Amino acid sequence: MEFVGSHILSVDQFDRGSIQRIFDVADDMAPYAHRERITRVLEGAILSNMFFEPSTRTRISFGCAFNMLGGEVRETTEVKASALAKGESLTDTARVLSGYSDVIVMRHPEAGSVGEFASTSRVPVLNAGDGPNEHPTQALLDLYTIRKEMESRGRGMDYLRIALIGDLKYGRAVHSLCKLLALYERVHYKLIAPPELGLQEETIEDLREAGHQVSLHHQMESGIDHVDIVYVTRTQEERFPNQAEADKYRGLFRLNQAIYTQHCEPNTVIMHPLPRDSRAMAQELDDDLIENPNLAIFRQTDNGVLVRMALFALVLDVADQVHNHAKPVTWYTARRFARRD
Amino acid sequence: MEFVGSHILSVDQFDRGSIQRIFDVADDMAPYAHRERITRVLEGAILSNMFFEPSTRTRISFGCAFNMLGGEVRETTEVKASALAKGESLTDTARVLSGYSDVIVMRHPEAGSVGEFASTSRVPVLNAGDGPNEHPTQALLDLYTIRKEMESRGRGMDYLRIALIGDLKYGRAVHSLCKLLALYERVHYKLIAPPELGLQEETIEDLREAGHQVSLHHQMESGIDHVDIVYVTRTQEERFPNQAEADKYRGLFRLNQAIYTQHCEPNTVIMHPLPRDSRAMAQELDDDLIENPNLAIFRQTDNGVLVRMALFALVLDVADQVHNHAKPVTWYTARRFARRD
Amino acid sequence: MEFVGSHILSVDQFDRGSIQRIFDVADDMAPYAHRERITRVLEGAILSNMFFEPSTRTRISFGCAFNMLGGEVRETTEVKASALAKGESLTDTARVLSGYSDVIVMRHPEAGSVGEFASTSRVPVLNAGDGPNEHPTQALLDLYTIRKEMESRGRGMDYLRIALIGDLKYGRAVHSLCKLLALYERVHYKLIAPPELGLQEETIEDLREAGHQVSLHHQMESGIDHVDIVYVTRTQEERFPNQAEADKYRGLFRLNQAIYTQHCEPNTVIMHPLPRDSRAMAQELDDDLIENPNLAIFRQTDNGVLVRMALFALVLDVADQVHNHAKPVTWYTARRFARRD
Repeated sequence: MEFVGSHILSVDQFDRGSIQRIFDVADDMAPYAHRERITRVLEGAILSNMFFEPSTRTRISFGCAFNMLGGEVRETTEVKASALAKGESLTDTARVLSGYSDVIVMRHPEAGSVGEFASTSRVPVLNAGDGPNEHPTQALLDLYTIRKEMESRGRGMDYLRIALIGDLKYGRAVHSLCKLLALYERVHYKLIAPPELGLQEETIEDLREAGHQVSLHHQMESGIDHVDIVYVTRTQEERFPNQAEADKYRGLFRLNQAIYTQHCEPNTVIMHPLPRDSRAMAQELDDDLIENPNLAIFRQTDNGVLVRMALFALVLDVADQVHNHAKPVTWYTARRFARRD
Repeated sequence: MEFVGSHILSVDQFDRGSIQRIFDVADDMAPYAHRERITRVLEGAILSNMFFEPSTRTRISFGCAFNMLGGEVRETTEVKASALAKGESLTDTARVLSGYSDVIVMRHPEAGSVGEFASTSRVPVLNAGDGPNEHPTQALLDLYTIRKEMESRGRGMDYLRIALIGDLKYGRAVHSLCKLLALYERVHYKLIAPPELGLQEETIEDLREAGHQVSLHHQMESGIDHVDIVYVTRTQEERFPNQAEADKYRGLFRLNQAIYTQHCEPNTVIMHPLPRDSRAMAQELDDDLIENPNLAIFRQTDNGVLVRMALFALVLDVADQVHNHAKPVTWYTARRFARRD
Repeated sequence: MEFVGSHILSVDQFDRGSIQRIFDVADDMAPYAHRERITRVLEGAILSNMFFEPSTRTRISFGCAFNMLGGEVRETTEVKASALAKGESLTDTARVLSGYSDVIVMRHPEAGSVGEFASTSRVPVLNAGDGPNEHPTQALLDLYTIRKEMESRGRGMDYLRIALIGDLKYGRAVHSLCKLLALYERVHYKLIAPPELGLQEETIEDLREAGHQVSLHHQMESGIDHVDIVYVTRTQEERFPNQAEADKYRGLFRLNQAIYTQHCEPNTVIMHPLPRDSRAMAQELDDDLIENPNLAIFRQTDNGVLVRMALFALVLDVADQVHNHAKPVTWYTARRFARRD
């Protein structure tokens, strides 16, 4: 795809080549995100960070990514604080806001809303989640993390074996990641979910037709052996008809260090899109995994900044100028970014 | 008026000369707002953008205008998030906040509140709307738009013919615009409103005494012919005693392309302060006008950035230095600002 | 204490030497906070200003302080807008957010929460108030104000006589200030409070054992004579068993100009942590004090910016570089900062 001036709305826009380009630029962003240098390449540029649905992590991640390129951020955080409440259409809002800023990031609770908004925006729009539909930067940062984790183990992206655990029916992160992974060769998807929350049949068919292997598991233990990646998501108990039904699965998909040691290959990477529910009853990743060096969940969020910086740089056509506007960091920074490479 | 260090609270502060000065500076801001250049003239300056009432468009517009001059923006978006909720007076809040920043923009639901706040502020305060009272930057951007639209048609501001449609009784945008227009020669105001929502008699008297022509219309068609500008506002149905009463006017003041073609002179400019209610039952400007090149509603919001930049530059005394701190734009920008000139 | 890279969580971290260092740096910040110069020393640095509890004054003060050092600010203002609502632990939130920014300021309604957050943060965390527990920057700005006010009267910090008025049982500002003052020689604390809201016995014991004088008063007049400082706080009426009980104290602790003239020594400094409740029934500082040059309450909030700038500069290790990145101010600034020195 051509990035300059484009909207980033869906993972369907990408092929292996465009993903490679994003990841190469993301690699270039590391010294800036890791605070070894700063860059002023987007000095004077303005991001409108429009979140019409609560979010801290994703909103701050996008905002910091733009700041790290030298740009300014204006922000909205609530639907009720908006002209939308007075009956304004999304297309009008887009026509207006795109006269104020250079690029817009948008999250909105309704599927398709960000695309509708983008249709009349005069500046590039990045989808930060439109309800159950898409959250392409999450899928990209997951894929980027997988690539880096595999690379640090001397592996590439083809022939990957991945266990996907939890609510595979409604989770937009899982759907988008499955699509992106399918761009690579002969992936083995091990799907671990309650029967009620399995991946859609059509998606499974599509993956198989594209030459990938898909196996279904209702118990975690049989699914997490012989994989490179264990990707855990929240089992949304509110999806079940009643609590008794939900309780049947409680604990089945709870990964801890003992289970990991017993069932996983050494160095199996543990991922999660976060936030994870840390309350005792819900905990899908036990606290005792925190010392496991293969727990990549915070490397995922660190990588999110790199990927978002890369998208801004590509869409605004400054990817090749970033280093020309570099300066040294003047302040104290902890050497806080864990490396596997 | 003298701008440097002044509060901007009301359109009553302006005469033709000061408006001319604002508009000249606004013209100078175009290359920056249109992203052809950036300027760092306000590097290090801080705006406190205090919105004690929901707003997206106006808040973001002020914030981006300040960013486009190189300044930083701190923000508050809700009255409940404020010390005001603990019984602090506006005058105390002003004494405190004016020690933090270089200029303050404030919106507040109560008439007179922004003036009260300004009375103890140690830095200039710009009124972004104090309830039903004033919203001077809206009136200025409307007037600036009229000037530019007229200019592009080879016309000046005197002898203007304008139709004002909708709720003329309660709409602060209309009141302020009427006052500003009255500074020019022999305006013809055609007032199109339900009898219940007409402009106040005293205002009409004032306009007539100042040498302007005022005519009253209860049907839209007879009012929109032979005018240069059609300025539509929302007819606030909740003002009527009951829905049956409101229904009598529904559709009377709904402008669409067919009505425009049949009744308006060619090139009649269509304006609206926005947001417009786009729900079918309420739509006062039909979607089929979107391709009409005389629909100026998004040029209005674009112009709002220019006018707000101009006010910041004048109040902070940097209007003549803006170009000295200019730099080229490094990133991709769409050629997105429609020109009529 | 060693500042570089440290968390600032409690006044217990400080000794006289470290306080002296903070105040020396705060003095150096004056030309920047007073808008006589700007500095770009933190250009490219990012503060995450995380307020999980409503606040305007403190939040804006921290944000402006960081902007005045040249840094960028990202912000959260509400607990419900957060992943915390989905059951995420504070330690996870800290692990994630500390990958986005260079320093974090945090306010949270629960005692100990900011310390828990800091325990897993990879960047320095400054406590902006954790419920009833601590608010160290408030105590520091109070102490800094006392030092400056005393200095302008040719006095030092030892042998200080201070009247503390209001709710001394629950007010975190008072507790922290008492602790900091105790680092100096032979302070005389005059505690003026309803018996129900007196300072804890243990605290009084500690102060006495450390060589300080403590006297208790239930009437204001007998406590405010022969002191250097009158520090007024809000008497929180909701703490009393019923309104009749609260009414007994209403007016007892209301300071006005007449009482000041009759009972206080000339030049006694009047302080208050603000916001003060200005509603007639609650007013603890009468409006007629506003012209009294010894009313230091707005010098306190002005000083808050200096102290917060100093903490950022020390923690991020740029205190000695600030002047190297200085530039002239290009815009109009009122000479608005009252000086006593």
